[in-house]
Amino acid sequence: MSREKNFWGWGWADRFPAREARRGLGGQLSALLGFSAPSLDDPPTIDAIALRPSRVKAPDSLAAIVDGSHEARVRHSYGKAYRDIQRGFRGVYENPPDLVARPRTEEDVVRVLDWASDEGVAVVPFGGGTSVVGGVEPDAASERVVTLSLEHLSRVVEIDETSLAARVQAGVLGPDLERQLGARGLTLRHFPQSFEFSSLGGWIATRAGGHFATLYTHIDDLVESTRTVTPRGVLETRRLPGSGAGPSPDRLILGSEGTLGVITEAWMRVRPRPTFRATATIHFDDYGRAVEAVRRLSQSGLYPTNCRLLDRREAGLNFVAQGKEVLIVAFESADHPLEAKMKRAIELVSDAGGVLAGAPVFREGDERSGTEGGAGTWRSAFVDAPYLMNVLVSLGVIVDTFETAVPWDRFEALHTAVTSNVRDAMKRECGAGTISCRFTHVYPDGPAPYYTFIAPGSPGKELEQWAAIKAAASEALLANGATITHHHAVGRMHKPWYERQAPALFQDALRAAKRTLDPVGILNPGVLI
Amino acid sequence: MSREKNFWGWGWADRFPAREARRGLGGQLSALLGFSAPSLDDPPTIDAIALRPSRVKAPDSLAAIVDGSHEARVRHSYGKAYRDIQRGFRGVYENPPDLVARPRTEEDVVRVLDWASDEGVAVVPFGGGTSVVGGVEPDAASERVVTLSLEHLSRVVEIDETSLAARVQAGVLGPDLERQLGARGLTLRHFPQSFEFSSLGGWIATRAGGHFATLYTHIDDLVESTRTVTPRGVLETRRLPGSGAGPSPDRLILGSEGTLGVITEAWMRVRPRPTFRATATIHFDDYGRAVEAVRRLSQSGLYPTNCRLLDRREAGLNFVAQGKEVLIVAFESADHPLEAKMKRAIELVSDAGGVLAGAPVFREGDERSGTEGGAGTWRSAFVDAPYLMNVLVSLGVIVDTFETAVPWDRFEALHTAVTSNVRDAMKRECGAGTISCRFTHVYPDGPAPYYTFIAPGSPGKELEQWAAIKAAASEALLANGATITHHHAVGRMHKPWYERQAPALFQDALRAAKRTLDPVGILNPGVLI
Repeated sequence: MSREKNFWGWGWADRFPAREARRGLGGQLSALLGFSAPSLDDPPTIDAIALRPSRVKAPDSLAAIVDGSHEARVRHSYGKAYRDIQRGFRGVYENPPDLVARPRTEEDVVRVLDWASDEGVAVVPFGGGTSVVGGVEPDAASERVVTLSLEHLSRVVEIDETSLAARVQAGVLGPDLERQLGARGLTLRHFPQSFEFSSLGGWIATRAGGHFATLYTHIDDLVESTRTVTPRGVLETRRLPGSGAGPSPDRLILGSEGTLGVITEAWMRVRPRPTFRATATIHFDDYGRAVEAVRRLSQSGLYPTNCRLLDRREAGLNFVAQGKEVLIVAFESADHPLEAKMKRAIELVSDAGGVLAGAPVFREGDERSGTEGGAGTWRSAFVDAPYLMNVLVSLGVIVDTFETAVPWDRFEALHTAVTSNVRDAMKRECGAGTISCRFTHVYPDGPAPYYTFIAPGSPGKELEQWAAIKAAASEALLANGATITHHHAVGRMHKPWYERQAPALFQDALRAAKRTLDPVGILNPGVLI
Repeated sequence: MSREKNFWGWGWADRFPAREARRGLGGQLSALLGFSAPSLDDPPTIDAIALRPSRVKAPDSLAAIVDGSHEARVRHSYGKAYRDIQRGFRGVYENPPDLVARPRTEEDVVRVLDWASDEGVAVVPFGGGTSVVGGVEPDAASERVVTLSLEHLSRVVEIDETSLAARVQAGVLGPDLERQLGARGLTLRHFPQSFEFSSLGGWIATRAGGHFATLYTHIDDLVESTRTVTPRGVLETRRLPGSGAGPSPDRLILGSEGTLGVITEAWMRVRPRPTFRATATIHFDDYGRAVEAVRRLSQSGLYPTNCRLLDRREAGLNFVAQGKEVLIVAFESADHPLEAKMKRAIELVSDAGGVLAGAPVFREGDERSGTEGGAGTWRSAFVDAPYLMNVLVSLGVIVDTFETAVPWDRFEALHTAVTSNVRDAMKRECGAGTISCRFTHVYPDGPAPYYTFIAPGSPGKELEQWAAIKAAASEALLANGATITHHHAVGRMHKPWYERQAPALFQDALRAAKRTLDPVGILNPGVLI
């Protein structure tokens, strides 16, 4: 039997703790967060979920690849945002897809889109289903919806070891992709927090952020070419290491969030697995100085693989350190030792007031990286964090994350506005709450801060409260020159702010492009465009 | 008096040698190229050029910024491609602009576009005028054409030293930009061969390739945001170090070649001037091994600033070395010493059969880079090469360059096809000729080879002969999976091949975007779209 995924929440079903264990965790909340758990509830069984009857009958020609079962419809109703998990946990499934299609070939994808275009049925492309912005949720306004799961398109089709590139089907999930590449000693090294459950096509469609804190931060940089099925046919770009021939076609697909076509394949830039690793953990007593240290490091040309600054609350909640800002700096290479780079990085951050927490660790050999000290504690916390959301939801706690990017000169104002807006909103809506921040990626011209907020919900009102807090955060981002999303995409959730952020004429141009590729407008209605 | 530019050819007028000097150069051709100069002619005077009368009368409201003079029209008729210089030298100006507009403010740009949209007058945006693909040439099919020169929009408006970014008007030329940034110790470090005469807006519109051989190869990577006047209004993107909010708006502007709007400003990522430099020159006795060495270096993660492989013909013609392939590897940094990187780079290329030509040179301090040995000889040759085209045209010699990019696994087949196609075409058309190759930029997944071909023209038939050779080259690129251009843009010249290379549905989408932003279709007709 394959391991069962949690249908209402994050990850594997067997990772959701029993009631008593959750009660115990709830009891620890006060000490950690300053408020106690509002409630302790249990999730529904999947059979108990009430669904609207399916409004779509697929033609016989598609019978072999469509699934109108209760379970399939429930499991494709939501992504994994807080509001998805909250609704799932409460058994609220107002808008499930009418059918789930699981193409086995690209030709199947073409047939589904042809049928849907003819019938005017909305199509929601579905990779790993880990969207946190409502990107895979059927639109309430759509009269009929089929969700198109890419799960069977999961092969690494071809590897070019000379060019270090691999042709990969879009439905492959992270671990399966790394397993297939790993058999040839290669890796994509794209490790978003959702890695275990998210797909290559999803990463491309949402411009996912990955493993590298500098240089190659977005999946964009790892894409050599793309192949996309649109309602008007296949759009395949040429495999090129670089090109200056007009605006980049791949850059239209990257970030298109399933609105222009269904990505079926991509040639991806891969690399040998790293054999040299260096990690250092640095403590700061002052957030401003820590930020300044990271800025200097980001502008040094050293380009660390990891450069993660946790504010003291983030460091504390994740048991990395107490009462200090923590900076984790790592380098990796498959080619050369890293002593000189690490030495200079430590000089730089020390000059800015950082104190090494232990000697930097250098390792050689083919193994998993960054499991030492603060970095190792952080790594576990990072991978487990989404599971914690399941538990907190069951305790009636509101928890969400959002992320952005902004030029360095505006960061202080942004950070002040975000934290005070969100604190005020939590206080007003929930009476309490906490917000913490880390940098996930840094650029020479600015950081990508990632915020987590946690507040006690009022039973039955959690989604309203969450929406008010989320809006307060988003307003602060917009007003301070930041982006509504650095790597979580726009989806439905960020659309009101995206529409204010993106140039109006660009949105017009994008709509025109969409009308060209999807004349009937079947693709992921309500998302992005 | 300001120094006068050559109106028919490249660069400063005073750099064109007198007839006797050119005769002397012509006499050396046989030894260098294996054929003698077909002719020795002199260029026309600008007054001797016959122009069609202007077909456009600007309204009085634009009188202060338009120029219908003979000289202005001649000087804005062509870019600097071989076919432009050949036509200019022969006094062939069949299709000059009717007027030249020189806006002094962005508001002037808006007024010109408003008027042109109302009147249906074609507008050709003109930066430095160094297009080598027919990108700034009025379209023969346009009934009325105004060329819009950005020359007066040349200021660095604002510098953000914290984020290392500068807001720059698009008409600024390379040296002026570096002078303005240099006053604050900063640099863009974008040095295309055209640097002295090309503009920021032109670099962005054409996705120019610059100084860095790896990582930040295209201007794309240095753009933080753009501001573009379209016939429908201003499209300004948000200053962001990174974003995942939908397809990138800047990436629609980058490579748009004046067809979607007139870029008036951009926020550019700048950096401190480098203070550490390391340069090494490496010789190879075998081209295949040299290519393999460069591939390994490109995949090492060392990311050299310069990684220029000259084949033996290129090295010989530029007097860098005789009978050997030459690889120039350089690193630079404003932060840290480069010994460890250079040591590893030399190990890598030595393992692949390279032999150091002298010890690597390490320097510290704020100065111009790379003037030692092979690298220095190469640098002079690089900057002077376009001047040589002037001379060769006057000697009746056909000379042109083209560049591409391709995955490593296809390079050998591509290179064989390109060189044999071009040699065959030169032999057939001209009876002789030579082709050489260098790598200008390299990526982990493939090189960007840059070819130069030189052949003896038949007086009066040079453009036909050139077109046949260029077509032979372009066919080889298309057939072997390469791009029609890595950093010279599409313009008019590459359009037939671009239309075969770019996905048809992407071109449809781009046309739809153009109709949205430029409903009357006034912007740079005949280019790209």
